[in-house]
Amino acid sequence: MKEYLKHHEWEVIEEGLNPHYNMVSESVFSLGNGRMGQRANFEEYYSGETLKGSYVAGIYYPDKTRVGWWKNGYPEYFAKVLNAPSWIGIRIAIGKQMLDLAKCKVEGFRRVLDMKRGLLTRSFTATLADGKTLKVEAKRFCSMAKGEIGAIRYSITAVNFSDKATVTLDIDADVVNKDSNYDEKFWEEVSKEAKEGRAIVIAQTKKTFFHVATGMCYSLSEAGKEVKAERVNVEQREKYAGNVLQLTLNEGKEMVIYKYAAVLSSENHPKDKLLAHCHKVLDEAIATGFDKLLEDHEKVWKHKWEECDITIEGDVAAQQGIRFNIFQLTQTYTGEDERLNIGPKGFTGEKYGGSTYWDTEAYCIPFYLGTAEKKVARNLLVYRYKHLPKAIENAKKLGFTDGAAFYPFVTMNGEECHNEWEITFEEIHRTSAMAYAIRDYIDYTGDDAYLAEYGLEVLIGISRFWAQRATWSTDKNKYVVLGVTGPNEYENNVNNNWYTNYLGAWTLRYTQFAIDHVKKTNSARYSEIVSKTSFDEAKEASKWKDISEKMYYPADERRGVILQQDGFFDKELLRVNDLKPSQRPLNQKWSWDRILRSCFIKQADVLQGLYLFEDDFEIETLRKNFDFYEPMTVHESSLSPCVHAILAARLGYKERAYEFYLRTARLDLDDYNNDTEEGCHITSMAGTWMSVVKGFGGMRVKNGQLHINPFLPDKWKSYSFRLEFRKRVIKIRVTADGVETIRESGDPLEVIVKEKAVKL
Amino acid sequence: MKEYLKHHEWEVIEEGLNPHYNMVSESVFSLGNGRMGQRANFEEYYSGETLKGSYVAGIYYPDKTRVGWWKNGYPEYFAKVLNAPSWIGIRIAIGKQMLDLAKCKVEGFRRVLDMKRGLLTRSFTATLADGKTLKVEAKRFCSMAKGEIGAIRYSITAVNFSDKATVTLDIDADVVNKDSNYDEKFWEEVSKEAKEGRAIVIAQTKKTFFHVATGMCYSLSEAGKEVKAERVNVEQREKYAGNVLQLTLNEGKEMVIYKYAAVLSSENHPKDKLLAHCHKVLDEAIATGFDKLLEDHEKVWKHKWEECDITIEGDVAAQQGIRFNIFQLTQTYTGEDERLNIGPKGFTGEKYGGSTYWDTEAYCIPFYLGTAEKKVARNLLVYRYKHLPKAIENAKKLGFTDGAAFYPFVTMNGEECHNEWEITFEEIHRTSAMAYAIRDYIDYTGDDAYLAEYGLEVLIGISRFWAQRATWSTDKNKYVVLGVTGPNEYENNVNNNWYTNYLGAWTLRYTQFAIDHVKKTNSARYSEIVSKTSFDEAKEASKWKDISEKMYYPADERRGVILQQDGFFDKELLRVNDLKPSQRPLNQKWSWDRILRSCFIKQADVLQGLYLFEDDFEIETLRKNFDFYEPMTVHESSLSPCVHAILAARLGYKERAYEFYLRTARLDLDDYNNDTEEGCHITSMAGTWMSVVKGFGGMRVKNGQLHINPFLPDKWKSYSFRLEFRKRVIKIRVTADGVETIRESGDPLEVIVKEKAVKL
Repeated sequence: MKEYLKHHEWEVIEEGLNPHYNMVSESVFSLGNGRMGQRANFEEYYSGETLKGSYVAGIYYPDKTRVGWWKNGYPEYFAKVLNAPSWIGIRIAIGKQMLDLAKCKVEGFRRVLDMKRGLLTRSFTATLADGKTLKVEAKRFCSMAKGEIGAIRYSITAVNFSDKATVTLDIDADVVNKDSNYDEKFWEEVSKEAKEGRAIVIAQTKKTFFHVATGMCYSLSEAGKEVKAERVNVEQREKYAGNVLQLTLNEGKEMVIYKYAAVLSSENHPKDKLLAHCHKVLDEAIATGFDKLLEDHEKVWKHKWEECDITIEGDVAAQQGIRFNIFQLTQTYTGEDERLNIGPKGFTGEKYGGSTYWDTEAYCIPFYLGTAEKKVARNLLVYRYKHLPKAIENAKKLGFTDGAAFYPFVTMNGEECHNEWEITFEEIHRTSAMAYAIRDYIDYTGDDAYLAEYGLEVLIGISRFWAQRATWSTDKNKYVVLGVTGPNEYENNVNNNWYTNYLGAWTLRYTQFAIDHVKKTNSARYSEIVSKTSFDEAKEASKWKDISEKMYYPADERRGVILQQDGFFDKELLRVNDLKPSQRPLNQKWSWDRILRSCFIKQADVLQGLYLFEDDFEIETLRKNFDFYEPMTVHESSLSPCVHAILAARLGYKERAYEFYLRTARLDLDDYNNDTEEGCHITSMAGTWMSVVKGFGGMRVKNGQLHINPFLPDKWKSYSFRLEFRKRVIKIRVTADGVETIRESGDPLEVIVKEKAVKL
Repeated sequence: MKEYLKHHEWEVIEEGLNPHYNMVSESVFSLGNGRMGQRANFEEYYSGETLKGSYVAGIYYPDKTRVGWWKNGYPEYFAKVLNAPSWIGIRIAIGKQMLDLAKCKVEGFRRVLDMKRGLLTRSFTATLADGKTLKVEAKRFCSMAKGEIGAIRYSITAVNFSDKATVTLDIDADVVNKDSNYDEKFWEEVSKEAKEGRAIVIAQTKKTFFHVATGMCYSLSEAGKEVKAERVNVEQREKYAGNVLQLTLNEGKEMVIYKYAAVLSSENHPKDKLLAHCHKVLDEAIATGFDKLLEDHEKVWKHKWEECDITIEGDVAAQQGIRFNIFQLTQTYTGEDERLNIGPKGFTGEKYGGSTYWDTEAYCIPFYLGTAEKKVARNLLVYRYKHLPKAIENAKKLGFTDGAAFYPFVTMNGEECHNEWEITFEEIHRTSAMAYAIRDYIDYTGDDAYLAEYGLEVLIGISRFWAQRATWSTDKNKYVVLGVTGPNEYENNVNNNWYTNYLGAWTLRYTQFAIDHVKKTNSARYSEIVSKTSFDEAKEASKWKDISEKMYYPADERRGVILQQDGFFDKELLRVNDLKPSQRPLNQKWSWDRILRSCFIKQADVLQGLYLFEDDFEIETLRKNFDFYEPMTVHESSLSPCVHAILAARLGYKERAYEFYLRTARLDLDDYNNDTEEGCHITSMAGTWMSVVKGFGGMRVKNGQLHINPFLPDKWKSYSFRLEFRKRVIKIRVTADGVETIRESGDPLEVIVKEKAVKL
């Protein structure tokens, strides 16, 4: 755990240059706008430790799979988030001396991420080897208003000298993924254009043939007046184009470089129009100018914050934590493009590849439901609907037939691209996360027409998967689900993981509900779906009913708890507190087999089920299982603490709920797991939001009604959050005196607050 | 299954060039002498499909591990069998035309492996593009008498022309492993020497720094008279040296090239003496000459065959099969060097890496016990004794303490180098294969002094492993062994695999027996071992006793069979006969998860246990379990059919026993599993021998006495085998009329034949 960042309500602040933490800071201070983004790499040359990373949403590369021993069924490739052409480069040389923070004396270094405005500012004073001192302030943002524009205001003041300076402004597409399996570069040059004042490189990805045009233009001003460079050389080489400017820095006078970038992809423009469009976007950017672009950008952020801000009074660390989570989520995914999804690292790193995990359905959709118009969550559902044919193909590759749909564990385009058999093939609960998300969406929004439009087709596919995946045990006289990995990935290839069995059976029941609903409300569409999917209701639905009624659920009657999976109680039942600190985290200290045969749980599993299906169980069942399983849980997944925070809150374990909250909220800011340098844990950030709103706030939607049942953590004076709920915005503020519930927009509404109906 | 090879009692014969099967033939016709060997690659240039492979015993390379997702505990490297410098090259050009069997018209192609003599002969007539016809006969062997010498007699006759010929004779160390993880070359040149008549390349392996000197010299004779080349050019480049000879081929006159090779490694010579020794060996080879070298070589083979031949009358396919298996085993491992072991592909291919699997203990040791002096099997045991410190280190890496020994799944030097967690970490029964082999050796040879000398230390280490690996289940009130993979690798990470639990408990009991024995027979050595291993008998042995007495064995009372592992009967219990042929082999047609959750068994598992511990169980127990499990067994491991052959024989299932025998005996000759092109299944060949001797022959050793209880398969007129048994050679011949038992050498002996004592 690192605590080098200053606490502040709206800002993340780093004071002093921390070369050892630079890669962590590069992740934490990342910028994005849903379309593109990049790590907080320095604009100037830096010879110290850095992980350079720029990313363009939806652009990926299918890297050849690397495995030790090939297992039949493994995908041929692993879709990598692509390190994309970089537009941030501003290299400065004074004479022959390069400005390089790793090499010169740096004072007053300060890096600030202004989350309110979506602006990264970095300032410092650097003294070169010959004693010349420069004062630099760099401001950067990726426009939320114009998704294809990025802008930098880079200010240099020669503090104690006047001299010639060489400034290189470039576009660099000669980049490589650190996680490239065979050290291959994934980009090829299509074309480039460089002239005085402008440079554009169009690069294409190998195999996937995405084209990305990245361009830049710039203007200069000295002491507030626009100036020209004394000389400009155009520099070009393979996958690279730029301008080299000769300037004179005059002592005490501020020279400002405005660098404007345009990033356009063939996902949004015809390939043959990319160059022309790129010029147009650059023209627009430079004409609008930095200040106006920033103003428009800030307006969008203002609006976003009005939708989804959470305030916490009396606990700056907690306040900063929740805002950081909301900020990152918002700049990762804006919900405007249904082809996109939420990568586990967003625009902050390349690790884990792929863009889409079940995290989206289990963690992110509730966040977007609560904080954005319903189309955002809907787009995430439609994304999976569009992948249904691929999910059917994935199932087929594994031997399933007749339209069974097996959603991938990791994907870019719907195809599976993960390759550990115990996850890829066996962590099957994820396919039902798609079903659960449909229910979640409909429950929250009331938009049950979604079932007819898209939902039912997906549900039929998934139910077909379960009907083939569950098998009959003559010995148990029940249906069983063998050879799975549950949410707790510290168990592999187990039989009858309770969560998996429960979710499978629930899916079959919910599909029946959806069938009945669509049949009743839209019989024409129902016939259409029957015919499109060759659905044989009489035969298939009765089989589904049989399975859901006769599903086997492992339980331990003596202890009165659910059994995580068959055989779990043969283990030595230890507690996390019995472990020596030197053994933690287990996944770095223990060999895999030892983890597997221990009782220790990576993340909520039985408890994940009790969280998702809370209305199906008595609170005492939850208490018994929480008291039993939580002490064995090491929370080595970023997705674990938030669920526990919500459950602890429900059980009235206030202190525990607060502890779990802090752990999830400041995971990246404090680098709890010592892995933030690889990127931030974007999807688990939605869980942080949930732990406030569903945990402390006790927010639920039951039968279409909003319920609030909050408590105030002891350390806080108050907290508030807003909810988008069925075309209203509701603000909830919780203080020691009670709960304020305000309808900020939309029609009147009855809300259940602490079990009492309140009219808003 | 391919059946392109001719049946013959002593020879393997290929007639006609089969380019599609060339890589299969290269495996089948491989040569070796325990020290070195190579695939049956052509001497001349060949542009068709080929897998070039030369190997030197004990020389390996630790290739950087390649995995998809790193698991804690994985070894950093995978020891590869090294494709070594090649000495066989004899390239022929007539004018500018290269002799290349892929490009010219080939007639009368014939490849014969004379197993009696250990000689590979290849003859053909080739017509080049311009109509010139050459007759070629190449004979090659790796001397069994002089392990560092190889020799080729390459005869060319110009059939219809006279012309200049260019002949290149070389040493090529610029070779690569096909299975190199990152396409890296593993050899570097140390030095080379090339002059007229001779070329030597000394190469060293990266990382392991083995030096191998490979040299060649040659002589020529025309029409029986020694001749000189008209001109000789010395050719050298990185890792390559040779002579280019200008000759004239005269129509109808046979030109013979004798190429002699020396292969010496730094395992057997000081590095700084390698070059001098290499010259010496070459001098000796050329002075001795091809015919005399061959004669000496044949003598060794004659002696080997006298020790271990099996004859079968009335079934040429079966006769050829058994001899092929014995031939390959014998040329792979001669038992003279205790640092060596039996690689799964011997000198026939590079697949699987490593040299040592549990195959050695479970399959090969019984073969060498029965066919060679006891020192051969003993050396194999000592090999593992010497790896004991590494086995303790391996265990430590996985979290075991206090001298627990976990033998690797695959190794070269004692370190683990396999990297699939379900095998590497969880297929733990292999560590007890070392214990079983000790018992097997002592039972057969009577050499119980081995316990004091080496055995007990190993047993204590292994027992310490089991004492930590077995855990107490309060629910079962028994010791359990969780998270294992049994011999049936089509189940992963299961609990309480019966075979594993039984073997673990047996090991603990046998160790106690060994302790008592050593204490009684050699108390001084016992004290030494106690002190060396810090063995606390009072504490440790009583724990071992407790575990072995309270071990949990899964069983199914209703069906009256042993349970392969917990939960096995939740599966759909199908039979192999229920599978469509198009689904076989499962490991190529089904995804891994589907295999895992099916009931289908890769290789003997429960039955492997009943085979190893047959005296512990009633024959009816064997029958019930055989009848239950065998129909679910797909035998997709080469190690499976032989065990089933032995068990079927014991149960009197004669037809089945014969079927299993044929499957194991002709596995590579007929390429049953379509994978012989990667190399022959060397270790399972020992199982073939066992299926005759222990299966049909019913050979057992009980309380130091040899038992024979044979039957004659219906298709055979007779069969015979020899046994080395306690300094005697016993020949057993089985005919329709009965059993002949002859003591061929050694002191008189009483043997139990069909339950009657017979004095020999």
